[in-house]
Amino acid sequence: MSQFSSYFEAARQASRHTVTIGAARTQAILNDLADALVAQTDAIVAANASDLARMDKASPLYDRLLLTRDRIAAIAADVRKVASLEAPVGEVVESHTADNGLNFRKVRVPLGVVGVIYEARPNVTVDVASLCIRSGNVAMLKGGRDADDSNRKLVEIIRNVLGRHGVDTDTVQLLPSCHEAAEALMNAVGFVDVLIPRGSQRLIQAVRQQAKVPVIETGASIVHTYFDAAGNAEMAARVVCNAKTRRVSVCNALDCLIVHRSRLADLPLICSPLADKGVELLADAEAFESLSASYPPRLLKRSTEADYDVEFLSLRMSIRTVGDIDEALEHIYRHSMKHSEAIITDDPQAAARFLNEVDAAAVYVNASTAFTDGAQFGLGAEIGISTQKLHARGPMALRELTSYKWQVTGSGQTRPA
Amino acid sequence: MSQFSSYFEAARQASRHTVTIGAARTQAILNDLADALVAQTDAIVAANASDLARMDKASPLYDRLLLTRDRIAAIAADVRKVASLEAPVGEVVESHTADNGLNFRKVRVPLGVVGVIYEARPNVTVDVASLCIRSGNVAMLKGGRDADDSNRKLVEIIRNVLGRHGVDTDTVQLLPSCHEAAEALMNAVGFVDVLIPRGSQRLIQAVRQQAKVPVIETGASIVHTYFDAAGNAEMAARVVCNAKTRRVSVCNALDCLIVHRSRLADLPLICSPLADKGVELLADAEAFESLSASYPPRLLKRSTEADYDVEFLSLRMSIRTVGDIDEALEHIYRHSMKHSEAIITDDPQAAARFLNEVDAAAVYVNASTAFTDGAQFGLGAEIGISTQKLHARGPMALRELTSYKWQVTGSGQTRPA
Repeated sequence: MSQFSSYFEAARQASRHTVTIGAARTQAILNDLADALVAQTDAIVAANASDLARMDKASPLYDRLLLTRDRIAAIAADVRKVASLEAPVGEVVESHTADNGLNFRKVRVPLGVVGVIYEARPNVTVDVASLCIRSGNVAMLKGGRDADDSNRKLVEIIRNVLGRHGVDTDTVQLLPSCHEAAEALMNAVGFVDVLIPRGSQRLIQAVRQQAKVPVIETGASIVHTYFDAAGNAEMAARVVCNAKTRRVSVCNALDCLIVHRSRLADLPLICSPLADKGVELLADAEAFESLSASYPPRLLKRSTEADYDVEFLSLRMSIRTVGDIDEALEHIYRHSMKHSEAIITDDPQAAARFLNEVDAAAVYVNASTAFTDGAQFGLGAEIGISTQKLHARGPMALRELTSYKWQVTGSGQTRPA
Repeated sequence: MSQFSSYFEAARQASRHTVTIGAARTQAILNDLADALVAQTDAIVAANASDLARMDKASPLYDRLLLTRDRIAAIAADVRKVASLEAPVGEVVESHTADNGLNFRKVRVPLGVVGVIYEARPNVTVDVASLCIRSGNVAMLKGGRDADDSNRKLVEIIRNVLGRHGVDTDTVQLLPSCHEAAEALMNAVGFVDVLIPRGSQRLIQAVRQQAKVPVIETGASIVHTYFDAAGNAEMAARVVCNAKTRRVSVCNALDCLIVHRSRLADLPLICSPLADKGVELLADAEAFESLSASYPPRLLKRSTEADYDVEFLSLRMSIRTVGDIDEALEHIYRHSMKHSEAIITDDPQAAARFLNEVDAAAVYVNASTAFTDGAQFGLGAEIGISTQKLHARGPMALRELTSYKWQVTGSGQTRPA
């Protein structure tokens, strides 16, 4: 860690003072940052061009890396949005006075130093920085090598704004994009309060395997929607198509449709909007049989067992036939990654069982899993979607970037033996 | 992990059904367990005797291992206490309906499978099991080899009670006491939702170093009390003596008294109750000078820098002299482990700075740090005191053993592009 210890020591020092910045100043900082991003659009685009020049235009990463004038304006708008959200720090979560006169206040505090390891998406740089600033945290960013020029320019702008407001510029730091920096971040015990990997399942697994600091896993998931015996087929057609095709590359996109055997005859109707979108179906024998007359043959295949353990992130979807809700729950239990799961049913008892028994961050009745998102859940923003149960679950925004402390005030109380 | 995979698979299966047990049944189970512990006192004492026979009577572990009739009655009383606490599962933490008609409910759920690695304290076995049962969690216990006969008898009693109530007996499991089982538990990704090490700093560090599953660190700490320029010396004498000597082996016990230079003349008064208790003071030059005339010479030594990084867990306490509150805050920042920290002052401004700027689970004004305890904080019980910021901070009881899920109900809503 020695090579990067100055970064970590600086982050820890910066984190000592963030609680004293206050909500009014973090709001002013973020509004100024939004202005600065727009004002320096040309410089950002130029830095981005040098990243793009190193990347193959045919790569799927190219579009993620690209920053245009419009995209920079959208990023700035997101920063203003975060500025407008209520700052969580200092909120008294609960308070009571004990019989001995001691007053206990549970007060919201920043987590401290938030590390984020991510890939070639420069928008994440500004996103994480603004959420950390508003929640009183220090951001330690480790971006992908492909986006390094863009990230360095963006962090330069952020730090300049912090400096103009008299705030420690090390409140936001960008680590070098090398692998050694990622390793140092994962091992910075005592310096990093939480590490959030954002990106592919491979990245998340690597961080979970290697990190010695606390990690929150986000994103990666296999999402199911179960069409129950008592489901409305027209609703299912709309909801399934939305969940599968609204954006195929996001974590809440549908991967597997589970269908009750008694409703196989409705499968052609449910799946027909998917054909128009070019969705390839990987169906078990019964579902294949049901679809074979209506679904385009080039888009219909038999599934293998392995298909049910794939997060597709593409125009593919598996289909599984079950005999009852217990089989559906069992399939979800075996294959879910506890992100988003849905049931389509008009049976209140089936709905209640699904809501209670499926173990996932978000469980839906009669709605598209595409709603799993911080803004849609009313959190106003999102730093990621936690798929673990510790600390925060599902969409994480400002409050989810806080901890608490107990403030206890007395008049000389001692505890009896 | 193969050797122990049947334990983990059984735990995961058991965790699927705990939410359906319900508060009334967990209460009945725990009250029956209390009865069973008392009824089988002789069998527990006999199992404990076989553990004790293997241990050196002179060992400090001997007393921790010992189970007497009275201690078993006290353990049973604690179980009844947990039974009387409100069951957290199912609580609707928040709820709102969005403009599109989707209803969002944030509902408390169990964490799932809670692993606990601990040392030779058989009372922890019952303690953890009862908190897990009441909070809807499955307990995977890995106790110390020294207490294995006691633990096996206690877990047998617990599982019998679970079985009599028609609950999966694998809701509480005791792993073999070998090191391989601890390793398997630390690596049971996907099977263990949180792992809590309870015991020495060495144990906690080893778990943090090796675990691949989420860990909550508990306990180990260096505790400070700062006697401010505006402190009341008589209050300090009472509070410091209580914090240091009430129980020297617990994590909230005072390790270091920080004293404002302008109040060195009060040090003999503040420390005089400590002499009666036999506390050895490790003082810096100024404090040593101030105490040399009054404190028993055999109990007064000069401190070294290393003394300020020791959690004593004994009748020793270090003393540091500072010039102002900033120096005190700096000393705490450098040496604290973020557990419990206190200031003695009549100056509201100093109190406010201390409460806001000291980063610890519990920060006190004019009170003994001995209060850092689940029962004292109004939580009714305690599975440990978290010294990290993620998930839960400070005393952890039933609520701190829960997560939440989002239940979203609609009428066919889809998300616009």
